[in-house]
Amino acid sequence: MKLARPLRGIIPPVLTPLANRDQLDGSAFDRLLNYLIEGGSSALFVLGSTGESPGLSDRLRREVIDRACATVGERVPLLVGITDTAFAESLHLAEYVAKAGASALVLSPPYYFNLSQPAFRGYLERLVPLLPLPVYLYNIPSLTKLMIAPETVLAAAQMPNVYGLKDSSGDVDYFARVQSLLADRPDFALLAGVEEILAEMVVRGAHGGVCGGANLYPRLYVDLFEAAARGDVERVRTLQSIVITISNGVYRAGEHESSYLRGLKCASSMLGFGNGLMAEPYFALREEEREGIRAALESVGLLNDSSNVSGNPEVHAGLTP
Amino acid sequence: MKLARPLRGIIPPVLTPLANRDQLDGSAFDRLLNYLIEGGSSALFVLGSTGESPGLSDRLRREVIDRACATVGERVPLLVGITDTAFAESLHLAEYVAKAGASALVLSPPYYFNLSQPAFRGYLERLVPLLPLPVYLYNIPSLTKLMIAPETVLAAAQMPNVYGLKDSSGDVDYFARVQSLLADRPDFALLAGVEEILAEMVVRGAHGGVCGGANLYPRLYVDLFEAAARGDVERVRTLQSIVITISNGVYRAGEHESSYLRGLKCASSMLGFGNGLMAEPYFALREEEREGIRAALESVGLLNDSSNVSGNPEVHAGLTP
Amino acid sequence: MKLARPLRGIIPPVLTPLANRDQLDGSAFDRLLNYLIEGGSSALFVLGSTGESPGLSDRLRREVIDRACATVGERVPLLVGITDTAFAESLHLAEYVAKAGASALVLSPPYYFNLSQPAFRGYLERLVPLLPLPVYLYNIPSLTKLMIAPETVLAAAQMPNVYGLKDSSGDVDYFARVQSLLADRPDFALLAGVEEILAEMVVRGAHGGVCGGANLYPRLYVDLFEAAARGDVERVRTLQSIVITISNGVYRAGEHESSYLRGLKCASSMLGFGNGLMAEPYFALREEEREGIRAALESVGLLNDSSNVSGNPEVHAGLTP
Amino acid sequence: MKLARPLRGIIPPVLTPLANRDQLDGSAFDRLLNYLIEGGSSALFVLGSTGESPGLSDRLRREVIDRACATVGERVPLLVGITDTAFAESLHLAEYVAKAGASALVLSPPYYFNLSQPAFRGYLERLVPLLPLPVYLYNIPSLTKLMIAPETVLAAAQMPNVYGLKDSSGDVDYFARVQSLLADRPDFALLAGVEEILAEMVVRGAHGGVCGGANLYPRLYVDLFEAAARGDVERVRTLQSIVITISNGVYRAGEHESSYLRGLKCASSMLGFGNGLMAEPYFALREEEREGIRAALESVGLLNDSSNVSGNPEVHAGLTP
Repeated sequence: MKLARPLRGIIPPVLTPLANRDQLDGSAFDRLLNYLIEGGSSALFVLGSTGESPGLSDRLRREVIDRACATVGERVPLLVGITDTAFAESLHLAEYVAKAGASALVLSPPYYFNLSQPAFRGYLERLVPLLPLPVYLYNIPSLTKLMIAPETVLAAAQMPNVYGLKDSSGDVDYFARVQSLLADRPDFALLAGVEEILAEMVVRGAHGGVCGGANLYPRLYVDLFEAAARGDVERVRTLQSIVITISNGVYRAGEHESSYLRGLKCASSMLGFGNGLMAEPYFALREEEREGIRAALESVGLLNDSSNVSGNPEVHAGLTP
Repeated sequence: MKLARPLRGIIPPVLTPLANRDQLDGSAFDRLLNYLIEGGSSALFVLGSTGESPGLSDRLRREVIDRACATVGERVPLLVGITDTAFAESLHLAEYVAKAGASALVLSPPYYFNLSQPAFRGYLERLVPLLPLPVYLYNIPSLTKLMIAPETVLAAAQMPNVYGLKDSSGDVDYFARVQSLLADRPDFALLAGVEEILAEMVVRGAHGGVCGGANLYPRLYVDLFEAAARGDVERVRTLQSIVITISNGVYRAGEHESSYLRGLKCASSMLGFGNGLMAEPYFALREEEREGIRAALESVGLLNDSSNVSGNPEVHAGLTP
Repeated sequence: MKLARPLRGIIPPVLTPLANRDQLDGSAFDRLLNYLIEGGSSALFVLGSTGESPGLSDRLRREVIDRACATVGERVPLLVGITDTAFAESLHLAEYVAKAGASALVLSPPYYFNLSQPAFRGYLERLVPLLPLPVYLYNIPSLTKLMIAPETVLAAAQMPNVYGLKDSSGDVDYFARVQSLLADRPDFALLAGVEEILAEMVVRGAHGGVCGGANLYPRLYVDLFEAAARGDVERVRTLQSIVITISNGVYRAGEHESSYLRGLKCASSMLGFGNGLMAEPYFALREEEREGIRAALESVGLLNDSSNVSGNPEVHAGLTP
Repeated sequence: MKLARPLRGIIPPVLTPLANRDQLDGSAFDRLLNYLIEGGSSALFVLGSTGESPGLSDRLRREVIDRACATVGERVPLLVGITDTAFAESLHLAEYVAKAGASALVLSPPYYFNLSQPAFRGYLERLVPLLPLPVYLYNIPSLTKLMIAPETVLAAAQMPNVYGLKDSSGDVDYFARVQSLLADRPDFALLAGVEEILAEMVVRGAHGGVCGGANLYPRLYVDLFEAAARGDVERVRTLQSIVITISNGVYRAGEHESSYLRGLKCASSMLGFGNGLMAEPYFALREEEREGIRAALESVGLLNDSSNVSGNPEVHAGLTP
């Protein structure tokens, strides 16, 4: 599917519902993909950090790709993460993605060995020309140990199939430096990866957001994106406070190191998208850690407090503040 | 092959000579394995960080396992790294290793997501009982982002197939705390991963060392181990100064982030073990970075300065101080 | 002077022009203080990090306090930093400040020893009740090694003379958590310390900003604050781009570690406020590092490119975009 | 007093017993100084991190200097820390130290602002020539945020009054690199600051140790130093296990961040050297945290378990293993 340049709007990093350790819950996955599309997503991104890609076997990754391609079809572009510590595995996965019919690839630095910027640049120069689809770089130094330098982004942007950057560093100053280096490249997508500052990033010129919370409430992030894009500060404030409620209530349960992902997957299962099983090394929240998440979902209207499970998450696709 | 408990002596983390990006240089690998065994190694460890395992495809890893098992045979125990970010991949690899006939597994924390100690402990509790061979834990926080807490080592040591710990943190105080927790477990192997302090660790009670430099000069580390074990301080000093020469001369060429591994692989190729090709994301040293390595190899007698390539590394297997 | 609660607007962290290593350039200091007041500052903050306080002798700090009190008078409130590694020195300095007639104190954690949150909380519980003036906490973990936890801020806010927090962590998420804990304390000032995200912080509810760049161009930050406060996104964008120009042009000269402060002091001297001398351990920029700063000042209209020194910085107090 | 070059042996970093927040407990201090000299110390070091110098007022620092000079006299050399964030304060303190009659100064990087190596080198080039006594550099990056690069040590060693380096980084590899750069400077003292690896460092060529634990048991560290220096591995092992017992038992009570210093000061008070009061920001251990310390002191024979306070610490000056 052809990609708008720059890609704009909300692109949820899709969770991966699991039936068991090495099996997709395909039906929950389908429902989630549909929920996200109906909620106004501009595109979908599978096999990212939020999709627990590094914790999935190669076989399971391919199952996710096939299912996502089949379910999403031509409704919105589908982006697929191909990050791996082994060059050959990233390349093979990219080829699989292209054959399956997805629209683009997302690539972070290989994350085991410590890398210098020149080494990562050399890596991109070798890998990217071999990739059969457009590529978005993905900066997430808290997990990969490498901050992709603004100069490296600039260099990568010269390659014809590098279409944009998703930045999950949360560093506004970094973002501003990338923007200023790419000031003459209005086609290069700059996507905000930290949903708590989505509106700010959009006001500064980000073209869209990759928001984990959109798995729960896609319409909220879509509306926030649009309010920020048209400069409606009043509306931004209203919606931002809901975002903060989700962030405080859902992403802070359990141990600090894993609280975002474990909270998000738990909340998603409460909304009816699967059983909440996680790929190792993470594991589902304990019962006592789930209380606060339920309360947060209720307080933003995603869960009805008279029922334990919504059963019908589709009703939440429309934002009713 | 049956493992002594505790495992003692020098266990080189074997380099992986490559013919090309996704192909083993089997002949160089065979020569290297033989060189290490003849140099007095107690066991061999393939597919560790030094073996660039995270940079190798699954297929190539299996090629390495097959070849190592065939070449090493029953001469010394063979340990194989199975660390992976995906639980299922580690498990599959472990099963492959067992079928191929190796002796033991080496396991680090899955290294993409940030982990708490309880989460890593839970991971071990799920994975280790499924593993078909003895396991050595491998602590290398600079790459995995997780320092395996002494208490976690203690808990793991209760599992019947956890046989020891390789510590590459370089933190002597950490090592002492692990030792003190495991004081009543003389069968639990404590292996030093930082060769610059091998002698100290042995004097403190480490049972052996996993020394990258042993790829170049196995006899040196074996002799150093033995001198330290018998408390021969004079001999320790002599040998340690050669270790430092190698460390300063070979591991500090090129960019800081990758200098150990790139220097080591370059030096190994100078000794005749393959072409020096590295798995991405690293890449071979540039010509001007190689000078210092050659000089260091010459100064410790591993290279003859009248010839460019030794051609006959076997002569160095005996230490001639 | 009585402090509004919460304190609002732009509070420049005033530079300290030096005549020599241990002597204030009183005349340049006076001109700077007047420039900042005329530029619309709500209050002034001397002896902060930007004022190089930790690099000044006790005697010189007292000279700064006396001069600032005399020059500022009752025109705007004067805040004075009292952070020190020694409890007794902070206390003595606070008493001196009160006698000299300033309005409030600013306090960071003592920064030599590593502190836990409970230890810092205990420190506040001992020190704050002894302080003779209102206190603003100052969170700057990059220099003090301690992130003041939101819960610690909440606890401190219960003390009657703790009036607010200046946050220089640059962490929007941190700021949101503090805000949410203090939601029922509209009198507690939340001041943004990172000027590159001033507008965002104000939209989120910050009451003001402590902006180093205000030393160069007070009116710019005052206008930006006001535009953000009234939700004028168009104006915010225009002014923010000037802020980014200053940040990129002035704060990135010289070595990374010291580039903000060395660049700022150099630029201030170019505008006529002293000779640019710095307190050790920093030192003035070298000639070749000054080019970019001059260019940045010219591009935002603070320096006339036909003259080397403006001679009359007062003309810049009005913003002429 | 004239200093041997290189300075050798054990140089305890002396604790500062306090009568109250801003008052020395002179009598306890005297007894401690005498205990350390009688225990075989080669020199004494006051106003270091262990002496809580950054937490002491200028006045109190001068009281410590005067008292130490008077009590120590010409029995052993006295080293005095002059580290401060303000250049002028370090210089004034150094002049005071010289007049008081001490033998040498100890200097760490100024620790508030982040420093590059060139900036710290420039700082040394300005300050050291003004200092009236020999200087030992002090590398303690965990507190100062700056690792003094080996090349910086080499450059400093060219200045005639820089006599040595105390390294508290705990990084053996760092130590080896410094050593190798200074191989032709046998007069330049290399002192180990991490007592848990004292023996190893001495075997590697360190000339002495600055061991906090020597405040409790000077003879132990002196004997360990001598055993290591003569290569008596058996004796080293025996003594090292006592060192580890002290380290594990005394330095791990209370919060992690402050456990070394709080534990040490508590233990010292149990041995009769003052009331255990600490300078802010630290504070004495709580009663329940003191149990383990008492037990550790008893197990190494420093406290008799039938009495609460030894009353006569002098008896411990001789090591009776």
